[in-house]
Amino acid sequence: MSDPLILTLLFATPAWQSLAADAGLEPEDCAAILDEASRLAEDILAPLGATADAEGARLENGRVILPDGHREAWRLMAEGGWLTADLDENLGGMGLPTTLHVAASLGFEGAAMPFMMAAGASRAGAHCLAEAAPDLARDWAPRVASGDWALTICISEPDAGSDVGRIRTKAEPSGEDWTVRGTKCWISFGDHDLTTRIGHLMLARTGAPEDGTRGLSLFLVPDRDEDGTRAPITVERIEEKLGLHGSPTCVLSFDKAPARMIGGPGEGLRQLFTMIELMRLQTSCQGAGVSLRAAALARRYAGERLQGGRPDAKPLPLTAHPDIRRQVATLEAESAILTAAVLEAAATFDHARRGTEGAQAKASWILPLVKTFGGETAFETASGTVQVLSGAGYTREWPAERYLRDARIITIYEGTTGMQGQDFLMRRLLKDEGAGLKAFAEDAAAERAALPPSPASDLAETLIGRLEALSDTIKTRDTRAQLYGADGYLRAGWLALSAQMAARLAATGAQGAALAQVWGATAEARMARAEAQALADPAPFDALFD
Amino acid sequence: MSDPLILTLLFATPAWQSLAADAGLEPEDCAAILDEASRLAEDILAPLGATADAEGARLENGRVILPDGHREAWRLMAEGGWLTADLDENLGGMGLPTTLHVAASLGFEGAAMPFMMAAGASRAGAHCLAEAAPDLARDWAPRVASGDWALTICISEPDAGSDVGRIRTKAEPSGEDWTVRGTKCWISFGDHDLTTRIGHLMLARTGAPEDGTRGLSLFLVPDRDEDGTRAPITVERIEEKLGLHGSPTCVLSFDKAPARMIGGPGEGLRQLFTMIELMRLQTSCQGAGVSLRAAALARRYAGERLQGGRPDAKPLPLTAHPDIRRQVATLEAESAILTAAVLEAAATFDHARRGTEGAQAKASWILPLVKTFGGETAFETASGTVQVLSGAGYTREWPAERYLRDARIITIYEGTTGMQGQDFLMRRLLKDEGAGLKAFAEDAAAERAALPPSPASDLAETLIGRLEALSDTIKTRDTRAQLYGADGYLRAGWLALSAQMAARLAATGAQGAALAQVWGATAEARMARAEAQALADPAPFDALFD
Repeated sequence: MSDPLILTLLFATPAWQSLAADAGLEPEDCAAILDEASRLAEDILAPLGATADAEGARLENGRVILPDGHREAWRLMAEGGWLTADLDENLGGMGLPTTLHVAASLGFEGAAMPFMMAAGASRAGAHCLAEAAPDLARDWAPRVASGDWALTICISEPDAGSDVGRIRTKAEPSGEDWTVRGTKCWISFGDHDLTTRIGHLMLARTGAPEDGTRGLSLFLVPDRDEDGTRAPITVERIEEKLGLHGSPTCVLSFDKAPARMIGGPGEGLRQLFTMIELMRLQTSCQGAGVSLRAAALARRYAGERLQGGRPDAKPLPLTAHPDIRRQVATLEAESAILTAAVLEAAATFDHARRGTEGAQAKASWILPLVKTFGGETAFETASGTVQVLSGAGYTREWPAERYLRDARIITIYEGTTGMQGQDFLMRRLLKDEGAGLKAFAEDAAAERAALPPSPASDLAETLIGRLEALSDTIKTRDTRAQLYGADGYLRAGWLALSAQMAARLAATGAQGAALAQVWGATAEARMARAEAQALADPAPFDALFD
Repeated sequence: MSDPLILTLLFATPAWQSLAADAGLEPEDCAAILDEASRLAEDILAPLGATADAEGARLENGRVILPDGHREAWRLMAEGGWLTADLDENLGGMGLPTTLHVAASLGFEGAAMPFMMAAGASRAGAHCLAEAAPDLARDWAPRVASGDWALTICISEPDAGSDVGRIRTKAEPSGEDWTVRGTKCWISFGDHDLTTRIGHLMLARTGAPEDGTRGLSLFLVPDRDEDGTRAPITVERIEEKLGLHGSPTCVLSFDKAPARMIGGPGEGLRQLFTMIELMRLQTSCQGAGVSLRAAALARRYAGERLQGGRPDAKPLPLTAHPDIRRQVATLEAESAILTAAVLEAAATFDHARRGTEGAQAKASWILPLVKTFGGETAFETASGTVQVLSGAGYTREWPAERYLRDARIITIYEGTTGMQGQDFLMRRLLKDEGAGLKAFAEDAAAERAALPPSPASDLAETLIGRLEALSDTIKTRDTRAQLYGADGYLRAGWLALSAQMAARLAATGAQGAALAQVWGATAEARMARAEAQALADPAPFDALFD
């Protein structure tokens, strides 16, 4: 059975209600789809989690080998249609709304986040090809859907991480096509034995170094041709990481590997945008999936573990103790609100693709929030679960510490929190002139008007109002002060979005109302902290460096 | 060279100034002592950190074997006098104030926190014997000081963690002495090859199960007699943990092992109190040591790593970017304030031992704060350092992820945060009638009166006032509401203590003033959050469980 909270939150999402009506998806259809996904998650993916963590991937004769069970899981994911659930049917997908794909993925990500890195890149890559290179998509997308071929995303280089303008991998014309030469790093599933072919979607330089990002073009670089002859691509190493051991993070070197250009020269970053957006949305889904799973473990353990009470009586379950209740309830409230926000983000993306007014601006506004706080919430929830399990949580006998190690990457890859804060403030507020916030606030007000009155609804109105006021104040500051305040502003944005999700949750019943109240108890103070951080004086920071 | 910040904060601590005057310790004496400790930390202990993490301890033929380098490091620690620096000279110690021992240990703990678990238990055990069993102390303490013998602390059992009243290990009379039978778990360095003999300080039951903690007595249980004949003690296993791999966490079973009672029957918990206090003080020192080291890594990396800036110009160091400055400065501010608080706690312990009025109440008040927030700050600082290092921080090439894994235990062992919150509220505020808070507030006001006026000083006055007001409000709530609010109240206590430390820091010069300002920017909002949490309505929490 899938988590009933997910279905409840899905149908409480106004943007989903209209999508579901259009697609003729009743709650019972969705429940059936989510139940099927849940069976796959629990029966097939969850067992991979522990073995992948302990064994990891290994580099053998220049190729990456995954632990047992991974190839079978990949095949079953493909057979279930889950590798490309929201891709068009004529490209081999199931044509489901992205929202439903995300709802199903929450269970997959919670069960085996590292494994899902392979699925996520392949799916996002197929979408990217579908939008930017229909001819390549016709060849590649159905083979990705069937699980025969995979895709990766190759952006970073040793001296160009967040700073993509310094990418040096060089693309040179070769007949009708191109070859690429250079080193790419941080490539998730940059090599593996899940498929017979891997296509690398890669940013490489066709312009001059001083052109920065305007000199970058997008290429598809297959690891072998259709006859199976290997391209000159070497796996230099797999990174030894804190967690995510089931996901081989590769350094790849390309020595004049044949490449097909996608879109026009100098348009690489723009062409890659769909893929980056989908992968950021996936990270938010990872965050919610891991959070839900960790919180469920905390509740289960706390209900079973006996400790405390009068020495002459039977010991009590941990959940008899107020401070443990406080801890578990807090983990559940944060997880539920994050899940609501991720579903909201996914539904907004679906609307943006359908051209609903304001949806694209709102999608771009909400993405840095769910990406960042998906990551933070997952890490904090995993850490909170370790704390509930106490000594046991610190050992490898329980998966809490693995969730913590895996989750720690989320705020780093696919754009660090620093990059998300800059995006949220400099692009969404200043460049887009607050269009995303405006769309969100309007949708939120309309939703609240349709909900029964509640303290959670009042709180949402208050916090969204404070975010709007903070936005006005920030606009008046100089750029340097704005950059110092970006992280605080991002946090304020998350609190406003969370408050709206809490109001939504509160309307779903007694449990939802209790979770909203748990979250709400400290919300205004947290908003005050974000405001203070967003408006802090840069001088003392500068004094410590200049 | 030792970290100059430590010496600055040490001599800015009013309680230390009087101790130093009594002991005739000038700043240059202390600098020389800290420099010597720092050389040992960097040359000998720091290299152990990485190897111990990678190799861990192993169980071989029933005995625990530590990686290479550990025995040599232990010998050098003993030769330098560091195993028992603050033990009386007539017991083999150096007779230094605990404060100076703590100041020196910050470097040791940052360099090799797992290794220091062995040193910490031996030192705390020697102090415990010195107070509770002078005859045993004469035999054991000098051998501990010389590094020949070690001590452990054995409290937890599989069904009795925080709940010590359920300890079942049974002590039975045997001639003039006793034997003990049962299983103890979570024993740090429960076995090892650093010394020729290990004495287990153990709580075992001499009374009936229904007597709870009143039926517990303290014993010394040597792992072998003086002729080297092994006692019937078996190492059942070493735990596989998230971190702290250099510290073997053992499950030990005792099958009628010979034991000497310490103090009287039923007085075990009281007799063990000195040891528990010293080990909690050590955890705070671990927290500060790891925080300082992580923050220093963040600054170093951010100063060296080049990234960003105009693509047609040389890349800039990370520290050119405002958000990175914000991150690094925040890590430094939190670490500095924690360090000040740990030194304050240590000096308070020294005064308590000397019988200074109010010092014992203040020591008991400050201990749960530095224990808990030492742990939280270390974990958050390590995590923040991972974030500054970004992808590199997530790999094992840099120690940030190790600091994170090691630090995660601090809020769990030696009493979880839940236990500390309960201690801080139920004992320190209610049972002691706020004597510790009163002593702290009086000392704090006297210190501020002697400092030049500053915004940091005003902020400290405000936040301490708010803590006092919160204390009055909490006293009026029912017990269940108090238990729900204990964690929030503990956080409010830490913010008030931190504010005083920030005021102290601000008076040390321009750098200290900047750090205090960085910390202070969000302090009032954080206090508001702690207050809201401390006074939250228990009803929604209960609704999620009943």
